[in-house]
Parts: sequence; structure tokens; C-alpha cells
Amino acid sequence: MIKVKVIGASGYGGIGIVELLLRHPEARIQSLVALESVGQPISEIWPHLAGFCDLVVQPPDSPAAQEPADVVFFATPDGVGMKTARAELDKGAKVIDYSGDFRFNSAEDYAEYARRIGKNPAHADPELLPMTVYGVPELHRTEITSDRRLVGNPGCFAVSCILGLAPAAAARAVRLDSIICDCKSGISGAGKKLAAAHHYPNRYEMMNAYRLAGHQHVCEVERELSLLAGAPVVVTFTAQVVPVCRGIMSCLYADLLEPTTEEEALAMYRDFYRGSPFVRVLPSTANVGSMHVRGTNFANVVVSVDPRVNRLRVVSYIDNLVKGQAGSALQNMNLVCGLPETAGLDHPSFFP
Amino acid sequence: MIKVKVIGASGYGGIGIVELLLRHPEARIQSLVALESVGQPISEIWPHLAGFCDLVVQPPDSPAAQEPADVVFFATPDGVGMKTARAELDKGAKVIDYSGDFRFNSAEDYAEYARRIGKNPAHADPELLPMTVYGVPELHRTEITSDRRLVGNPGCFAVSCILGLAPAAAARAVRLDSIICDCKSGISGAGKKLAAAHHYPNRYEMMNAYRLAGHQHVCEVERELSLLAGAPVVVTFTAQVVPVCRGIMSCLYADLLEPTTEEEALAMYRDFYRGSPFVRVLPSTANVGSMHVRGTNFANVVVSVDPRVNRLRVVSYIDNLVKGQAGSALQNMNLVCGLPETAGLDHPSFFP
Amino acid sequence: MIKVKVIGASGYGGIGIVELLLRHPEARIQSLVALESVGQPISEIWPHLAGFCDLVVQPPDSPAAQEPADVVFFATPDGVGMKTARAELDKGAKVIDYSGDFRFNSAEDYAEYARRIGKNPAHADPELLPMTVYGVPELHRTEITSDRRLVGNPGCFAVSCILGLAPAAAARAVRLDSIICDCKSGISGAGKKLAAAHHYPNRYEMMNAYRLAGHQHVCEVERELSLLAGAPVVVTFTAQVVPVCRGIMSCLYADLLEPTTEEEALAMYRDFYRGSPFVRVLPSTANVGSMHVRGTNFANVVVSVDPRVNRLRVVSYIDNLVKGQAGSALQNMNLVCGLPETAGLDHPSFFP
Amino acid sequence: MIKVKVIGASGYGGIGIVELLLRHPEARIQSLVALESVGQPISEIWPHLAGFCDLVVQPPDSPAAQEPADVVFFATPDGVGMKTARAELDKGAKVIDYSGDFRFNSAEDYAEYARRIGKNPAHADPELLPMTVYGVPELHRTEITSDRRLVGNPGCFAVSCILGLAPAAAARAVRLDSIICDCKSGISGAGKKLAAAHHYPNRYEMMNAYRLAGHQHVCEVERELSLLAGAPVVVTFTAQVVPVCRGIMSCLYADLLEPTTEEEALAMYRDFYRGSPFVRVLPSTANVGSMHVRGTNFANVVVSVDPRVNRLRVVSYIDNLVKGQAGSALQNMNLVCGLPETAGLDHPSFFP
Repeated sequence: MIKVKVIGASGYGGIGIVELLLRHPEARIQSLVALESVGQPISEIWPHLAGFCDLVVQPPDSPAAQEPADVVFFATPDGVGMKTARAELDKGAKVIDYSGDFRFNSAEDYAEYARRIGKNPAHADPELLPMTVYGVPELHRTEITSDRRLVGNPGCFAVSCILGLAPAAAARAVRLDSIICDCKSGISGAGKKLAAAHHYPNRYEMMNAYRLAGHQHVCEVERELSLLAGAPVVVTFTAQVVPVCRGIMSCLYADLLEPTTEEEALAMYRDFYRGSPFVRVLPSTANVGSMHVRGTNFANVVVSVDPRVNRLRVVSYIDNLVKGQAGSALQNMNLVCGLPETAGLDHPSFFP
Repeated sequence: MIKVKVIGASGYGGIGIVELLLRHPEARIQSLVALESVGQPISEIWPHLAGFCDLVVQPPDSPAAQEPADVVFFATPDGVGMKTARAELDKGAKVIDYSGDFRFNSAEDYAEYARRIGKNPAHADPELLPMTVYGVPELHRTEITSDRRLVGNPGCFAVSCILGLAPAAAARAVRLDSIICDCKSGISGAGKKLAAAHHYPNRYEMMNAYRLAGHQHVCEVERELSLLAGAPVVVTFTAQVVPVCRGIMSCLYADLLEPTTEEEALAMYRDFYRGSPFVRVLPSTANVGSMHVRGTNFANVVVSVDPRVNRLRVVSYIDNLVKGQAGSALQNMNLVCGLPETAGLDHPSFFP
Repeated sequence: MIKVKVIGASGYGGIGIVELLLRHPEARIQSLVALESVGQPISEIWPHLAGFCDLVVQPPDSPAAQEPADVVFFATPDGVGMKTARAELDKGAKVIDYSGDFRFNSAEDYAEYARRIGKNPAHADPELLPMTVYGVPELHRTEITSDRRLVGNPGCFAVSCILGLAPAAAARAVRLDSIICDCKSGISGAGKKLAAAHHYPNRYEMMNAYRLAGHQHVCEVERELSLLAGAPVVVTFTAQVVPVCRGIMSCLYADLLEPTTEEEALAMYRDFYRGSPFVRVLPSTANVGSMHVRGTNFANVVVSVDPRVNRLRVVSYIDNLVKGQAGSALQNMNLVCGLPETAGLDHPSFFP
Repeated sequence: MIKVKVIGASGYGGIGIVELLLRHPEARIQSLVALESVGQPISEIWPHLAGFCDLVVQPPDSPAAQEPADVVFFATPDGVGMKTARAELDKGAKVIDYSGDFRFNSAEDYAEYARRIGKNPAHADPELLPMTVYGVPELHRTEITSDRRLVGNPGCFAVSCILGLAPAAAARAVRLDSIICDCKSGISGAGKKLAAAHHYPNRYEMMNAYRLAGHQHVCEVERELSLLAGAPVVVTFTAQVVPVCRGIMSCLYADLLEPTTEEEALAMYRDFYRGSPFVRVLPSTANVGSMHVRGTNFANVVVSVDPRVNRLRVVSYIDNLVKGQAGSALQNMNLVCGLPETAGLDHPSFFP
């Protein structure tokens, strides 16, 4: 059994991985660590876990929190992992970090990201950066292997955009400065932190775009697409919130370089995702939406072409808290532990 | 492996049992039967099942639909099971029926129920009625055993009320004509059938009471409570719909015969449900609601007393599609198959 | 033109009265006062008001806030009005207070209320209490007249319960210790203050009962019903929250003393509310719900009888922010200003 | 008083204009006509209208339905107005039609539209087409005058796109084949007609794109933008539904021909909409969303530029049932009746 520690256990990202681990055939939760709700059983904070996980939340400096584990998830915001991941690595753990701290391989790339989001551009432990890998297995499966010890889990918007655009970028099929990512997220993407914008009465009938000047996930999208294309990619990105709890629907547009039919585009996508069990490539006539991936690690990627202007349009659906967060994290754990990629993730959700 | 046939597979009740069976360690879905969507893979109708269950929906008269199974679920409305259950029983199957058809043990009791809901009071196969049992394991566990071949699964409102009132009725602790059931249901309780009342724009900000003249589930509640109390019970029942998808919240009131503290009432309830793994008895200070049982087979039963008038008040929360339908059905299957009551049901849901 | 000052202008109660005043034929908003958002135009805080009301929010101690007005609304929580209403009264204003501060006519009654909600039982200005009136015009219309200078606007749950039970209490038609108020509110009832319970992801599928040990509005309900009945009334009250934004649905139960038909009960209610333009008395077959009063000052009161146990059941629907708050306040303003009771309130809402 | 007849009165579009007319200072509803709900008071079908409009719904062939009126609204789907508008025009009425029947001035343009949506391309009364005008007053105010007798009210998606792109098209500021309209609508946009996709349980957590092969509103958008630009415009259009009741949020993208700052773009938009009381041009930092225009005739148009790729991005918010339907219709009525454009439309909505 893989012994797992979850740091940042009391947020949505924390209980997301707890829920998944409870069903995992090879993993066992050893300890839950957080700054909030210390001393309370997790099932008091989140009563749906009662009887399934009643572990008490430990403060970071407690002996229980410091016991070594096989895998440590940092379900924490930017700035936490970079300061404390090394201690876990030194104890022999493999570390999977949810934040932007380990999504980049050099201090320069991190600094650019940090500047974009108004944070200190100096990484607290830059020597770790060369050993990390960006945790989108569909692109980096060969690098997320059992000798890997540190993974930077991707941002939720970024996963949806990258999965929706990677085949086109890899094939150099589109004009690289023509890409637009029009992304709508459910509200859980903002976490459990209270905000007027997420107060039920202010939100139930509200849809809006936000951070029009730039969203932090753009860096990852541009980096990954540039790597695939072998040339710089710049995207226009519009983040929007709509009143669903879970789900991201990203509409992705790019001008095709050659006249391309929907069938040809579909073939390109299906080839690319052969061997990726969580990506479903679908034609424009597919009757799918965000609710069909809710609670699961799947990405439904609908591929179409506007033939009048020869423009590729992809609609990419994920659950922001699963494929966009805890599910990808578990998929990464499976890979770095040498387990089947789908372990603990091969179940449908419920509907409606 | 237990081979399972689901009749009425294309509705919410049908996919509910499919979702649960996919996780069950000892059961395998053999065939899906329905009148609608015949010839389509179930995963085309309900795309969240893609890759998990792609069986084609069979018409009732097809050879595939008529192959014998070990267990047959009738996820069908009133009037279907009474006509076709015998054929399945004759082939050796155990039958679990979702409707009112097998909730009563005599033609007289059935006739009263049928009259109340404006249906033909003559049962189509009254000889089967003596062999059925009412499928609330918390009350009838000793009768839902491996020699039982026919189970009448309870109504969703009824489960919530019965679980919330059974200990008080069994103890004869309350005045039997003082019971009020004020019940709020999510919209999925009405099934997938379209109705103006469940059209999103008409419903998203709408709460309302309905069928004030009488709801069909009252019969079951009164019958079960009367059996427990050993004397006739008449309840006032108010059915309401509020804009959640899943969940029932029933507020149950009854005048206590003796002065009783909350602690005494709690003790009475905890004693009663010792050995019932899916009932959580909770004090009035518990911080729980419908979302904490969503997607699960649990009933959260909050017990309190209004000391100023010595009135018992119980708030009972279930998921109408799980404990109120498919989950109870699977729990019943486990019992009639001699499996642990919790098999395939021992997982938490996701939150939020 | 009546010059109006709104204190506590930046909350839901504040903008509620602003929205109504903008349509009022005889009133003009003179100033908006609040502790939060000082110096900002109200239309920056609440952009739907842009172009309709762009007044800047004044701090309480500013000269603009202290200018005399004809009518002052205290859209403020408990404890504010009792300290500052006198200053406004001294300047000649009529005062309508939303909180519990002026709902009681004696220091003793106030103290009991304050104790029940865990507040200081000593009223800050007890000499004002004899001059106030409880602002439910349907019961106190003859006391809310142009020589009245102080009105205590009722609580939202209380309005729905009182309107639903007043005719039965006044007629002494029911057993006075048998009354149950099972009340469901939309989330806006808790105001704009952020709380985990009202965070969209925690609430969208959540219904729950709360404060089972006692809700502050019970005092008002019991006081008003006792006055009507001429004898002490004690009610069991269950407050619940369901995921709608606006609306209260109260199911009210009481044992009838004499055998009574629905028609007789309806007649009793219609008689009582003759001359009350905002109460619609409806039979049990009426197809109505909370959405049909949304945005308006109406109460839809559905009257039925459970004949098997001779129990009265009334379902009372209001908009918690209008009839439950700003609408009643404006109705009270109309009465104390000698205007038609319906001025500025006689418009339908939109649907859906 | 202007006497108004509403044909198609029982749908959302019908009650939308009824609600607005009830507040209009110069108009009076003379009759309501529909195929459904004939013989019922409109307030029985839509109980929020009780006491405000209790007119009985007339069948089209009844004498009441055939009485002449000053203005007739056809709140009807494609194909109705083209067959019956002439009869109303012959009686002297001015006609405002909600459907696509009168949005085009020639049989050829109509045929292209009809083909796109799979309808009979032959218009039933093509001689009327030269006399109609496209009812977006912000573009055609000088043609919607008191001698105008026939107006084709625009489609809801089209209004949001046209208002968001018109200034850029008129200025020839963008590349005409680079325009993308990414449009999200609330569910009321599909009307009161029941559909599985709008059944509450299937929709409450669902967002999805639909009709990826082409939406009927594209024709109008392209025609209007082409007229403004003086050259053919082809747009890529993605229609999406998200779980709000009311509202459209359209994200509009186009490549700027010249380097342009947000300030310059804002100035261009403000100039264009000077004199248009219902368009609010806002900078990228504005804190607005769909809920701020709900229930009103406003369009909130947020203008920004992605400087890295010199791309214009406009986010356009309207209420699909008001500015997208009944509100524009009333605005058109005001203009063809020589009334102030804002009559009956100058009120804020409520919030939250």
C-alpha cells in the first residue's frame, strides 16, 4: 500500500484527492495536514466523509504531519510547495504539487509566470525546478515515470485548453498567432474561499468575464503549445464564470493553415490521443456537455471546423476539480508509482 | 457473479442502478430493457456511461431481454411489474420492483393505495402479493433474506419519513394522530419525464407545495408506522418541490406522550438503528444537510425536541435517487443474495 | 415630494428600498448612508442601478447624512436604530426600522426577544418603545396612520407565518399549542454578508434546517398570534434554507377545534383579508409557488384542511426581500404619509 | 392611449411584452391572442400577472382577436407573421414581429436565411419585405420612425453580437474575416417549450455548445455587419447554453487592422453609441455581468484589446428576453409611435 500525505487537506482540492484515494486499490491516506480546521476530524468539516475518512487534521509542525510518506500531495496555493516540498523529498517522498510552484523548469520561466500574477518572481527553491515535470500525462507520459519524484500539477483552465489544442499545435496545423481560448468555469474553480462574487445570491443568475487583462493559466498554455509547435505561441484568453459548481467548457479557435475537413481534424485528434484513456475525441454532432464529465477524470473534446473561414473550433469539457485538479494529480501519482494510469479513476459519475 | 437484468433502464431509476452495479464487486449487468431508446447503446442516451456500460437497450420482447437472470430490477412505473414479474420469477430470478406494485401484501391493501392515486384497484397478479416484502431493510432486514424472491422497493418520500419516525412509533412515544410530515424533494424525484413544472426557467427560483389533497406515498408511511406502533397511524403529509436536483429533506413532527429530552430521544433513535449501517442519527447541533448524503445510500436523521410543547422534531435527509430508489434496491439485492448489506454501496460521494 | 434617507444603504435591504423608491410617484431619495462603501456611488457597488441612482454613499457623521429628511429607513441590523433613531425623530423625520429594535412596545418584551437571540437585553432607548408599532399593515393598519412616527418593520419569516395564521388565531379556530411553522427561505434572507453556508458551491444542491434550538422571529409570531387570539400561543418553528435566491414558503399547521371544510376555512381567510390588497387567499388546487410573488409585495396564502385529522394547513408564499422587508417598509411609509397603501408597489414582476 | 394586441401571448415572449406594457404610460393592452390556453385568463397561466392583467386568451379566429388595434406584436415563431401580418396592416395597425419573417428586405435574403435553418425558402408574403426594417434602433433609428408600419424584431443572440461589433465594423477597424462570436445564453432563450435539454435535472449543472454546424442568428449578424462595413463579413459563431434563466454573454473577437489601445477602442465605441440610451460602453476593468442587465433593456458592452496580438475583444451582456426580445420590441413600438425611445423601459431591475 502506498502511504499518502495530503497537505492543504481542508480545501476543495484536498477533499478531492481524499475522495479519490478512498477508492484507490493501492493507496492509503496516512495523514491530513492543513493550517485551518486543525484538530478537527476531516469528516466534521466535510460531513459527507463521515465513516470513510475520520482522520484529524494535523498542523504542519506536528509530529504526525512530519512522518514520512510515500507520496505527498500539496493541495496548496502558490508559494507553499516551493518552501516545504524539499523536506518531503528529503524524507524519500514523491511530491505532487497543485500550484504554479513546480510547473516550470527554470527560475526564468517561473519568474515570468510570477510576474504575470503579481507575485514575487524569485522562486524559493529554484534548484528543484530542473527535476519537476508538468503533470499533463497526455503530453508528458514518458517523463512521468517511476523515477520521477516531483510533479507540477497543471492549472484547471490550462488542462482544458492544452488538451483541446495540443494535436493542432503538434501538427503545426494552425496559425500560431490566431489562437483564442474562450473559457467558462464553474464556481468551485475558485475554491472554498469566500468572495462576494461567489455568494449564492450574487451568482445564481450571473455570468461574467473576469481578469480581462490576463489570467495566470495563460503562461502554461502558451509554454506547452509552443513546445509542441516548436515555435512561440501567443493566445488570447478570456476567463469566464457561470453558475455551475463543477465544469470547464473551453471554446478554442485557430485558423487552419490548409483547407481541412472535420473528418481530417477528427482523425488528427484521434491519432494524437490514441493511448490516452481519459480523452474522448468527439465529432461536432456529439450530444455532450460539462455534466457528462462531472466527477470524473475525462476530457470530452469536440472537434469541428468552420468551413467558410477554414477555422478550427474545439470545445473541450472537463471537471475542473477532477481532470482539472485532483484527478490529474492521482493520474500523476499512478504514473510515478508505476501503477496503471487509470487506477482509482475508472468509475463513472452519477447523473443527473 | 450475479447476472442482473434492468427493466426500465433508460430512466433515472434505471441508470441509477446501472451506476451502482458498475462498482459492485459481485454483480454484472447482463441486459438492459426498456420501451424507449430501443436499439441505442445506453451510453448514447446517457453519455457519462460511455466506456463503462455500452450495452444496447433491448425491447421487452427480444430474445436478449428474455434470457434468464439471477436478479431483475423493475425500474418501471406502477403497473408494469405486476404484469411481468411472474415471468421472471418463473425463470428463477429474484425480482426487485421500484413501483407500488409489490409494496403491499394483500389485494385489499393494494386496492386502497391504487384508489388513492386514481389507478385501477385490481392488482394484475394478486397471488404474488403474499410473497413480497417491503424493501426498507432497516425495518424488515430479517425478512429480506436469501430465500426471499420478491421485494417491493419503497417510495422515496416514504423512506425518508419512515426512517425518521420508526423509532418513535415503535416505542409508542408519540400521539399517533399528531404526526406531520413536511417533505421537500429535489426535482429528479419526478423522473426524466418532461413537465412544465420542471422546465428550468419555470423552476430555478421556484419552490411550491403540490398534491395538497394527498400524495401516494402516504399509504406506505401510515402502514409501516401502524405496524410498528401496533395501532392505526394517520399522518398529515405535505409534498413540496424545491430547486435542487437530488435530495429529500423531511421535517417530521409528533407530540411526545411523556416529557422527553433531546438526549433521551437521541438514545431511542440510536438504539433502534444499531446495526443499520446507512442511518446516521445526529443531534440538533449537527451541521448537515441534503448535500452530505447526495449520491450515497445514507440517511442523516437529526433528532430534536421542542421542549416548550414537548414535541418531537426529526429532520431526515436522503438522496431520493439512491436511498430513495436505486441504493435501497441494491441494498435489497445484497440481502436477498446473501451478500454484505453494504456491498457496492460503501463509498462517499464527491463534494461540492 | 417626500424626501427619503436610507441608512444601511449598501446591503440587500438598502438597495431593495432604493429600487422601490425609484418607481414611487411621491418620493425622492435624498441621501444614502452606510458604514461600508463610503464615498462610492451606489451604482458602482450595485451596477444595475447605474443611471437610475448614482448617489454617493455617505458616512453617518457627514453633513449630508445628517440633513433632515421626511422619512428615514433604517435598513440596518439589530442595535443600530435604537441608538440613532431619536436623532432623526428629533429632526422631524418619520422612522421605519428593519430590525428587531422597534418591534416591541415595552422594555420587557424587547428584553425577552434580545435574550432569545443572545443580545444585550437592555434596550438603548426604551422611551421610544411605547410610540412604535409593529409594521404588518394587514393587522395594524388602523395604528399605522399619518400621526405615527416610528414603525418596527417585521422579520421576513414572521410576516409569512403571521399572514398565514392570523385569521385562524383571530377566530380562535385552532388549538393554540398545536401550531407548527415549517419555513423555507431563499438565501438572500441572510443578506449580503459572506458565509460558508451561502458560498455557491456549498449551497447550490443543499437544503438544510438550521438554528433548531430557536429562531429569533418566533417571538414576533407568538406575540402577534397571542394578541389576536387573546391567549398565549406557543409555536414550534423550523427554519430551513433551500437554494433559491428570493422567496419564503411557510407550511403552517394547526389542529382545528371544530370540524371545518376547506371552503369554510377559505371563507374565514377571505373575510379577514378583505381590504388587504397584497394578500391573495387561494384554494388548495391553486397552481402557485414562490416565483409568482418574486419581486413583489404580495403574499400568496393557500388554505387547506386535512380532513382525516381535522388539521388546518396553510402554505404562505412571500418574497423575503419585498413583502418580507423593503416592500412592507414602503407600504408602511405610504400609510404613515397618508398615501394609498399600494403607491409604488402596484406592479407585477417578470417571469421567468 | 395606444391600443395593443399581442399575438402569441402565452409564451415567454408574449408575457414579456405584457409585463412591459403594464408599466407603459401611453399604451393599453386590448387583447391577447394565442393558439394555446385559449379561453383562460392569462393570469391563470402565469399567476404573477393576477390582478394586473386578467384578460382571457382569444383564439386567432375569434371576433375579439380580429378587432383592429394600433399596434400588433407577433410574439410568434417563424412562419406565423408572414401569413397574418397583412391582415393587421390592412386594418391600420403597425406590426412588430419577433420572428425571422420580417428581418430581411428581399425574398432572396429571406430564402438564404430559411435555407440555413431548414425551412421553406419561399416567403409567404414577399411583397411586404420591402416595407420592413430590422428592429435594432441603435443602427436603424432613422428608419424606425412614425411612418414605418412593419418592424422585424431581431434575434436575441444577434442583438448582443451586433451591438458588440457594430462600431468596429462601421469604422472598418478589424479584419472582416477574423470575427468570432462566442455566445452563451440562458435557458429562457429557448422559450417555454419543453425539451430534455432544458429539464431541470439535466440542466442545472450543464453547460454545452450546440448547433455547431450553424445557428440561424448568424445571417442577421453578417448582414448587419456587412452593411456597416460596406463589404462582406463572415463570422464564426458558437452558440452555448449555461444554467442561468435570463442573460446572454457574448465574447466577440476580431483582429484589429491598426495598433489600437483600449482607450482608443473605448472612444470609438462611445462615439458610436452617443445618443443610444440603452447601451453602456464600459472598460475592461468594469465589474459587470449578465445579472446587472437582467429584467432591463440595457446592453453592457465591455471593450478591451489584447495588445500582444492586437486583437479586439468585446464582451456584450443583455437580457435575452428584454433587449433580446420584448424590450427591443417595445423600443421599436415607441419609435414607430413617435414616443420617447425609453418610454416604459426606464426602470432598473431588482437585485439579487
